[in-house]
Amino acid sequence: MPQFLETSNLYAIGHALLRIVAILATARVGLAVGNALIGRALKQAPPRGDGYERRALTLAAILRSALRYAVNLLALLLLLQPFLDIRPLLAGAGVLGLAIGFGAQSLIRDVISGFFILFEDQFAVGDYIALGEAAGLVEEVGLRITRLRDSGGQLHIIPNGRIERVTNHSRGPQRAQVDITIARQENLQRALESLEQACRETAVALPAQVKEGPKVLGVVDLRPAEVQIRLVASVAPLTQGEVERELRRRAKESLDRRGDK
Amino acid sequence: MPQFLETSNLYAIGHALLRIVAILATARVGLAVGNALIGRALKQAPPRGDGYERRALTLAAILRSALRYAVNLLALLLLLQPFLDIRPLLAGAGVLGLAIGFGAQSLIRDVISGFFILFEDQFAVGDYIALGEAAGLVEEVGLRITRLRDSGGQLHIIPNGRIERVTNHSRGPQRAQVDITIARQENLQRALESLEQACRETAVALPAQVKEGPKVLGVVDLRPAEVQIRLVASVAPLTQGEVERELRRRAKESLDRRGDK
Amino acid sequence: MPQFLETSNLYAIGHALLRIVAILATARVGLAVGNALIGRALKQAPPRGDGYERRALTLAAILRSALRYAVNLLALLLLLQPFLDIRPLLAGAGVLGLAIGFGAQSLIRDVISGFFILFEDQFAVGDYIALGEAAGLVEEVGLRITRLRDSGGQLHIIPNGRIERVTNHSRGPQRAQVDITIARQENLQRALESLEQACRETAVALPAQVKEGPKVLGVVDLRPAEVQIRLVASVAPLTQGEVERELRRRAKESLDRRGDK
Amino acid sequence: MPQFLETSNLYAIGHALLRIVAILATARVGLAVGNALIGRALKQAPPRGDGYERRALTLAAILRSALRYAVNLLALLLLLQPFLDIRPLLAGAGVLGLAIGFGAQSLIRDVISGFFILFEDQFAVGDYIALGEAAGLVEEVGLRITRLRDSGGQLHIIPNGRIERVTNHSRGPQRAQVDITIARQENLQRALESLEQACRETAVALPAQVKEGPKVLGVVDLRPAEVQIRLVASVAPLTQGEVERELRRRAKESLDRRGDK
Amino acid sequence: MPQFLETSNLYAIGHALLRIVAILATARVGLAVGNALIGRALKQAPPRGDGYERRALTLAAILRSALRYAVNLLALLLLLQPFLDIRPLLAGAGVLGLAIGFGAQSLIRDVISGFFILFEDQFAVGDYIALGEAAGLVEEVGLRITRLRDSGGQLHIIPNGRIERVTNHSRGPQRAQVDITIARQENLQRALESLEQACRETAVALPAQVKEGPKVLGVVDLRPAEVQIRLVASVAPLTQGEVERELRRRAKESLDRRGDK
Amino acid sequence: MPQFLETSNLYAIGHALLRIVAILATARVGLAVGNALIGRALKQAPPRGDGYERRALTLAAILRSALRYAVNLLALLLLLQPFLDIRPLLAGAGVLGLAIGFGAQSLIRDVISGFFILFEDQFAVGDYIALGEAAGLVEEVGLRITRLRDSGGQLHIIPNGRIERVTNHSRGPQRAQVDITIARQENLQRALESLEQACRETAVALPAQVKEGPKVLGVVDLRPAEVQIRLVASVAPLTQGEVERELRRRAKESLDRRGDK
Amino acid sequence: MPQFLETSNLYAIGHALLRIVAILATARVGLAVGNALIGRALKQAPPRGDGYERRALTLAAILRSALRYAVNLLALLLLLQPFLDIRPLLAGAGVLGLAIGFGAQSLIRDVISGFFILFEDQFAVGDYIALGEAAGLVEEVGLRITRLRDSGGQLHIIPNGRIERVTNHSRGPQRAQVDITIARQENLQRALESLEQACRETAVALPAQVKEGPKVLGVVDLRPAEVQIRLVASVAPLTQGEVERELRRRAKESLDRRGDK
Repeated sequence: MPQFLETSNLYAIGHALLRIVAILATARVGLAVGNALIGRALKQAPPRGDGYERRALTLAAILRSALRYAVNLLALLLLLQPFLDIRPLLAGAGVLGLAIGFGAQSLIRDVISGFFILFEDQFAVGDYIALGEAAGLVEEVGLRITRLRDSGGQLHIIPNGRIERVTNHSRGPQRAQVDITIARQENLQRALESLEQACRETAVALPAQVKEGPKVLGVVDLRPAEVQIRLVASVAPLTQGEVERELRRRAKESLDRRGDK
Repeated sequence: MPQFLETSNLYAIGHALLRIVAILATARVGLAVGNALIGRALKQAPPRGDGYERRALTLAAILRSALRYAVNLLALLLLLQPFLDIRPLLAGAGVLGLAIGFGAQSLIRDVISGFFILFEDQFAVGDYIALGEAAGLVEEVGLRITRLRDSGGQLHIIPNGRIERVTNHSRGPQRAQVDITIARQENLQRALESLEQACRETAVALPAQVKEGPKVLGVVDLRPAEVQIRLVASVAPLTQGEVERELRRRAKESLDRRGDK
Repeated sequence: MPQFLETSNLYAIGHALLRIVAILATARVGLAVGNALIGRALKQAPPRGDGYERRALTLAAILRSALRYAVNLLALLLLLQPFLDIRPLLAGAGVLGLAIGFGAQSLIRDVISGFFILFEDQFAVGDYIALGEAAGLVEEVGLRITRLRDSGGQLHIIPNGRIERVTNHSRGPQRAQVDITIARQENLQRALESLEQACRETAVALPAQVKEGPKVLGVVDLRPAEVQIRLVASVAPLTQGEVERELRRRAKESLDRRGDK
Repeated sequence: MPQFLETSNLYAIGHALLRIVAILATARVGLAVGNALIGRALKQAPPRGDGYERRALTLAAILRSALRYAVNLLALLLLLQPFLDIRPLLAGAGVLGLAIGFGAQSLIRDVISGFFILFEDQFAVGDYIALGEAAGLVEEVGLRITRLRDSGGQLHIIPNGRIERVTNHSRGPQRAQVDITIARQENLQRALESLEQACRETAVALPAQVKEGPKVLGVVDLRPAEVQIRLVASVAPLTQGEVERELRRRAKESLDRRGDK
Repeated sequence: MPQFLETSNLYAIGHALLRIVAILATARVGLAVGNALIGRALKQAPPRGDGYERRALTLAAILRSALRYAVNLLALLLLLQPFLDIRPLLAGAGVLGLAIGFGAQSLIRDVISGFFILFEDQFAVGDYIALGEAAGLVEEVGLRITRLRDSGGQLHIIPNGRIERVTNHSRGPQRAQVDITIARQENLQRALESLEQACRETAVALPAQVKEGPKVLGVVDLRPAEVQIRLVASVAPLTQGEVERELRRRAKESLDRRGDK
Repeated sequence: MPQFLETSNLYAIGHALLRIVAILATARVGLAVGNALIGRALKQAPPRGDGYERRALTLAAILRSALRYAVNLLALLLLLQPFLDIRPLLAGAGVLGLAIGFGAQSLIRDVISGFFILFEDQFAVGDYIALGEAAGLVEEVGLRITRLRDSGGQLHIIPNGRIERVTNHSRGPQRAQVDITIARQENLQRALESLEQACRETAVALPAQVKEGPKVLGVVDLRPAEVQIRLVASVAPLTQGEVERELRRRAKESLDRRGDK
Repeated sequence: MPQFLETSNLYAIGHALLRIVAILATARVGLAVGNALIGRALKQAPPRGDGYERRALTLAAILRSALRYAVNLLALLLLLQPFLDIRPLLAGAGVLGLAIGFGAQSLIRDVISGFFILFEDQFAVGDYIALGEAAGLVEEVGLRITRLRDSGGQLHIIPNGRIERVTNHSRGPQRAQVDITIARQENLQRALESLEQACRETAVALPAQVKEGPKVLGVVDLRPAEVQIRLVASVAPLTQGEVERELRRRAKESLDRRGDK
């Protein structure tokens, strides 16, 4: 590599000068482009109220400082290269980079998963979804994390790369389902009629929630001492609990009225 | 590497010019081919109603922009190569690429799995399948994900690479199966006859669903206080629930008629 | 590397021409061999009725097209090599290849497992086997997947690489086993005699299924209020359920006859 | 590499001297910068009472000593490089570095996760959160670990990289929920009225805790012998237990007063 | 690299010829050695009846064919090397090899585990062992898999690399153990005497199986309504079930005789 | 590389001699430094009674012997380097080193985790902690393992890298908690008064253990037939069991006195 | 690389001869050293009766044969190196080595774990330990595996690398613990006195086993219908079962004597 010192002609000196200029210019351009990209990336996020702006500025400052250190160090090493072999330093940096790369895997997986959630429209803010053991209304879909608010008020924060299966309850009508148990010695036919009456009453009472009238599905379990009967209805998303509670209350009253228990 | 500056003959200059032309031409051709491939890949997908077209255009724009940046940067580096050692930059890019490659593993696994699902015809739109804990009618089989609609109306979205075992309920006749429990002190023979009567009635009542008449399989459990008897039938796919509910209702009535409980 | 342009003798020119010819010839030969291998690999699979032929032709077309692109691109790069450093491109392709290699691991593992299943004859079409949670009659043993049909009619599709343990029920006689519970205060000796009677009757009733007469194994549990007695028989594969149900029915009747419960 | 000994001109000697100076200067500068960075990193942490200062000084001393050994060893190797091939040593160090890199993965993952917890404000000191099986008030959010104090007084220490899902109970109102069971033969309407009375009393008794008055949600389970009724209220964070206990006590008394059980 | 064409002296031509001869000779020798090794590896396996010979011949043919292709291709590439840069091809093959290497990991792990099972004599054909959830008599210990026949007649096939813990029941005497429950209000001393009587009778009845006479170990559980007493015996391998059933039968009869329940 | 044999000037011979001297000197120095480091590392551990000294001396001897072999082998290879290409040997050593590096991962992870346990003062000797399923008093915190003595006297030895979550029971007051169940038909108010009396008595009886007087928290469960009431107290670490047992005994006596059950 | 053929001076020929001699000598020395190391490694293991000697000789023969093949092949390749590029062969061997290295990971992990078990004296032959689900007396601690004999007579063989947590029951006194349940309506004080009497009797009856007299710990559970009282004692290792059985028997008799149940 120190060949330019051996040849005394002008080409070598010109080449060395061109080299220095190229390194410095590339460093300057790289720095400017990097700073511009950082600014642009952070500007594209929509403005939000809760201190997001302040945190974004902090992040931008940190990233710009890191970029400046990295570019200057690299330029210095490139300038010194004809005088010392930088391969040991590069190898060390490579091992460090590898360790960081392994550690950052999950970050990259989160972002890739987040991109596909958005691109494939798997769920959107306001949907009621279940992600593994956590379920709730979607409050935010980000590139890295998803925030869910469950019915108890808790806020679940889940990295996108951890999502194995999305179950979306807000895409199309849902099924309300109530199981009623009667004693095995009861008259089955009469009980079915009482329950059909309760279904008709519920359809009238909750017209906005019920899409397709509740009906008696049939006998779903025949245990030694009990018979289990299922009622189902097609309802609007997020009204399942309401329709099921109404169905249960009316079913009990209807069975009580006829003397069945 | 800077040898062409040391030799003053024409070959060197011609070589340098050829080099520049080759780099620029390759960059241009690569860009054109890449853009064409992006356009073709996105056009081959069948047109669908739900905003898919709009998302595809967005994705194409993003990909083309990323391609343009990458090709131009690479061409610039190649042009500068005789003046500065680009190996440190390449090593950095390699580590970054490695991290992305690790992170993107699951994406590649999804696509490979999706290809084999389609090529081996493991399931198709409209089949009722079970994938681990999620079961439902297949709404979409994509290269990356599969969408299932379960009987409760929920939409399950599962990456293909997460599918460990496919259980398909729509390939051939299914088995309806009902277990009836009678007290151990009852007369077993008489109970079996009542249940056979219920089987005959069900076969007559549901001729379209039942492929092979329900029959009494035998005594499947002999517990201290109870005897469990199993009825089975071969039925058309997706009619299992219906036939089982009918069988249960008729079994109860038939046992009640004869005075068995 | 561009040394051949510096030496003006004939060797250099001849060498350059030889180089071009070698690259083009190797590309052509590689293409022809690849195409022949693809055709041969797909022809060796036995013809099957269900659209397999059509899918095989599609796959062959896709593979040939991919091969043609890859070989031509590689040849072009090799021809350009004296004029531009193709190492950056190779490094990029290496990272891509690595990511694909990681993603394709499970495919390779499937094929290796499939090869050993066939070579070691672990199971064959028609055997009843259990693979983890899925059990059924083997419908197909492929290099990549195994298809099982369970007793409920469901079709299970399992990648071979996911198989951790094979349990084969069709290699040699199986054991039918029935546990009978009697009250602890009953006379044990008399109950054992009743059950031996039931065993003798069953052996007579099912001569084809029973390989070695059912017998009373002994008292397998002595709980506070109950005594559990086990009956076993050696039976032909796939007849366990039938023999066990018959044994249970006859045991109950035999105990009832003698007044034991 | 030993070419500078073959050329007897002054360039070579100058180059060798420049090389030695460059190595020594770079080593000195690297050492100073490293020491400064260590000092700065440890100073930025806020001062804390519990022996943290002393431990920070110890760590700084260890890190500086390690840095000095590493830089001096590297400089020595670089100076010796023209006389012996240091690649074997580098390869050995690379393997060692790789092993350490693999081992340190979880450390890097912890720090990356910690950064995102802070940057995305997933939780803060004083919040009540659940991280997998551990739940409690956050006592410290560090870059590497999070400390939780649970209601039993135990201190949980969890590395940030182990956090798969954050459930935050301190972001917005929470839901207090009490399930009351009455016998199935009771009069449902009268019981509901008693419970509504208890709700009104609780709202009056705990005005600071209750955000939105407790109300009777409806019948949430209809078991063979029992009917389960749910009461819910929107309450301030961390007061759920208090409101639920008050609701339970008043519900029991209200039901007792009216003679329902 | 094409330097030998630039020097017109005899050394270069001799060197080129030597090179061609060396490549061709090495290829021929490598092929012969490889074929010999394949034949030897397959011959060393002991002859077995069940179609093993036929499968071994098939495997040998496949391996020899693969070897011939690989060696010839490699020789061709080496001959062409002075005319074209084969590094791109090598890199591609490396990625492919890496993918296969990853996929074949479990195969290598199986063989290493199998070697240690044999070398450390962990179990042998005829032993009764438990490997995780599978237990049975060992039918075959191979380098790659182990075959177990369980008491139900099922054949379990387990890759050796999946074996995490071996539990061998055939190395030394085993313990038969029976727990007897009596009511808490019974006279404990009298019950213990009855059970000791049963132990003595069993030792006399099964002299071949019992190594060390059954004895009453003592009270192992004192539940609210019951007292649990344990009987143990040291017995020959594989006779545990027999001794335990005999002990249970005699314990019940002995307790009945004395009027204890 | 063998260029120094081609140049007949003195520089080459001097360079060769310098090379040999440099290699031998570096080997000698490396050996001395390595031996010193081994001695120092083992001396820093505090002297302990149980054969630790003897084991440390054995380990030092093993390590020094391994170091001497490794350094001498490396020096020999470096001396031979101008005469033979040592890259194949290096590649082989690299693969071996990689395998060892992978195998030693968990060792490195243990030490890193141990360092952070000590540096962050997660627990100390004498604390009562829970690590996953093992809980006990800390007997030793080492760089690689932690030893716990549980209340049953068992000694648990856990590698630090396996610790996923530390739960420390000795940092601050703990909560004693007792749940008392009364029948649902009992007078709730009177029962609460009895329990408050028991709390007051316990605070008087155990003044050293109780930090903050036991109190009745309220009704924590309202089951069909029972009402569950919780008593809590803030107590000194490791006295929870004692306070809870005292509270239970006094609660039972207080309820008995008043005639509540 | 073939430069030595171009220079016709004596140095080149001398260098080539030196090269051949160096390769052959190194191969011979390496072979001798390797054989000596194999012999030494196998001789150091203590002689054991059960066929170990024979197996060690077999292993030594296999290893020496493998070493001879490997060294000769490597020497041949090094001799041929000036005439053909051996890098493709090395790359192939590298991939193979990598695959074997991955597969052998668990072997290396086993040996590292075994070394630390011995060096840290985690357990020794004769200790009663629990390793995950397997527990028993240690029969052998090897570098690769540990053999345990459990109380039922089964022999457990566990690779050391699979050991996640060691629980040693033979390091210090153990705790015997018996829980006695009395009805809730009983007089608590009188029952405690009866149990204290049983404790005193047991301490007298088993003086060798009991280190610290059994005592009544207190009320550990207060269930709706029952009160649970715990007795504890400090006992010698491996006598827990004996002391607990004696305590249970005497507690029952003591309670019976006083009329408590």
